[in-house]
Amino acid sequence: MTGNYVWAERNGKPGRLVPDREVTIALHDRGFWYGDGVFETVRVWGGTLPLLPRHLQRLEAALAALGFPALSVDWKQRSQAVVQANQVSMGYLRLAVSRGEGPRGFLPPADPQWLLLIEAGDWAPAVDYGREGMRAALASWRVAPNSPLAHLKSLSGLDKVLAKQEATRLGVDEVLFVNTDGHLTEGASSSLFLVRGGRLCTPALDCGLLPGIARAVVLDLAGLSPQPFETRLTPEAILEADEAFLCNALAGVIPLVEFAGQPIGGRSGPGPVTLALRRQFEQVMAGRIY
Amino acid sequence: MTGNYVWAERNGKPGRLVPDREVTIALHDRGFWYGDGVFETVRVWGGTLPLLPRHLQRLEAALAALGFPALSVDWKQRSQAVVQANQVSMGYLRLAVSRGEGPRGFLPPADPQWLLLIEAGDWAPAVDYGREGMRAALASWRVAPNSPLAHLKSLSGLDKVLAKQEATRLGVDEVLFVNTDGHLTEGASSSLFLVRGGRLCTPALDCGLLPGIARAVVLDLAGLSPQPFETRLTPEAILEADEAFLCNALAGVIPLVEFAGQPIGGRSGPGPVTLALRRQFEQVMAGRIY
Repeated sequence: MTGNYVWAERNGKPGRLVPDREVTIALHDRGFWYGDGVFETVRVWGGTLPLLPRHLQRLEAALAALGFPALSVDWKQRSQAVVQANQVSMGYLRLAVSRGEGPRGFLPPADPQWLLLIEAGDWAPAVDYGREGMRAALASWRVAPNSPLAHLKSLSGLDKVLAKQEATRLGVDEVLFVNTDGHLTEGASSSLFLVRGGRLCTPALDCGLLPGIARAVVLDLAGLSPQPFETRLTPEAILEADEAFLCNALAGVIPLVEFAGQPIGGRSGPGPVTLALRRQFEQVMAGRIY
Repeated sequence: MTGNYVWAERNGKPGRLVPDREVTIALHDRGFWYGDGVFETVRVWGGTLPLLPRHLQRLEAALAALGFPALSVDWKQRSQAVVQANQVSMGYLRLAVSRGEGPRGFLPPADPQWLLLIEAGDWAPAVDYGREGMRAALASWRVAPNSPLAHLKSLSGLDKVLAKQEATRLGVDEVLFVNTDGHLTEGASSSLFLVRGGRLCTPALDCGLLPGIARAVVLDLAGLSPQPFETRLTPEAILEADEAFLCNALAGVIPLVEFAGQPIGGRSGPGPVTLALRRQFEQVMAGRIY
């Protein structure tokens, strides 16, 4: 079933579960006019939220970076209530915190009338990623390595929207960004990993990218044997790699089977290290690791 | 008086003037979740909208860049209706077009259920900018010169929000951005001009900046005598200039009197070329030029 109940809460007012058709956003909400807020998309697995603590840690760091006062919100209790109200077993949970209603102008009010929305619904991958993988190409523009927005999952996502449109035009599933130093950062909705000589590597956060939750889980899983993981990579490194994969909190580990029209690692499908990590990631979701 | 009536219109449905307290945004509006849309802020001068045609040209170009189908909307008629309904004489008009309601995910629907909002209200400058000017400092991060977002006045404005917070922390009115090539681009809510040896110059669009409406008017005004205007400028050029000013559609030409704690052109206040352009800009608004 599709999620029908949304947790809606405004600063200073008690929140509640509301049928989604009754939830609206105020005309002058800063999330709408200025993209002034952040969100998280969390995987629901068997009715549970195994990675919620990591998402909440990132969410609270993002709110602090935006200058929000500390919110005394029991995120976990509210999130679980939304999953239960909508009887979601395999699906997603989405939390958004906007700076809420405010006067015209970019400068936010010191005491924001923040708006919190939490919703949940069923979700299943459109294809079997473990078998099909994804194809990627480069975005047509470069990103700034030290933009503060690179590290935030914000309500200002138009660059990602344009990137997904570009992917569609190029006939691929994902576009990858390169920063103005020439180094790979991430996909529009995924983190990037390469496997080279049995070693895992991924673009370092200071290249300008989101500290992805799935990325952190993969680093943890691979960190069982100590290796240098975070580095600087050029686009050429993808085609020279033995394997490559993408990952995000919803779809887990996704084999990258083609980049810029070329197969990766001289094979037509996913590689063995990728598939092993994909299985391990699913075991984390199922509560069998950690 | 403050604007109380808003023009609200959705794709395929007739729009109408609605009291602002009755206007809400749908839970799944893409303007909220993804900043997927654009807006314009237009100066209302004596109840008229002298620069509206320029704003609408930029708005329609932005919608095309976002992949919107052509909207058959009489923007001008609707804008004038909003100004009149709210009896605005000296104020602002704000138009926003969001991609509207859509499913989860960055990729937008091909046939967007766009939402158009137009509002208007009184506005007057907080201080006499012609006398006081503004003080500016550099933003702490660099921007990408070829980001498609740099050219769009989008609903993804969180970078501008963070910049205005930084300005407040630094005790200045505006922060200026430098791109990753080391060249100045613009302020968080203004375009930048320098006067050097009687010549006007401003960062070229391909440095990565908004094609500002006030910027275009100033270039037109100064273009009465042919000169090279659009160029690449480093931050040092501001302190070496005879004069500097900012401009935007709402406040017009604003003298820049201090940059990074230093006075500009060895004087404590606005320069003569700046003040002459400020007066000319106001004459454009009053319909005495063009």
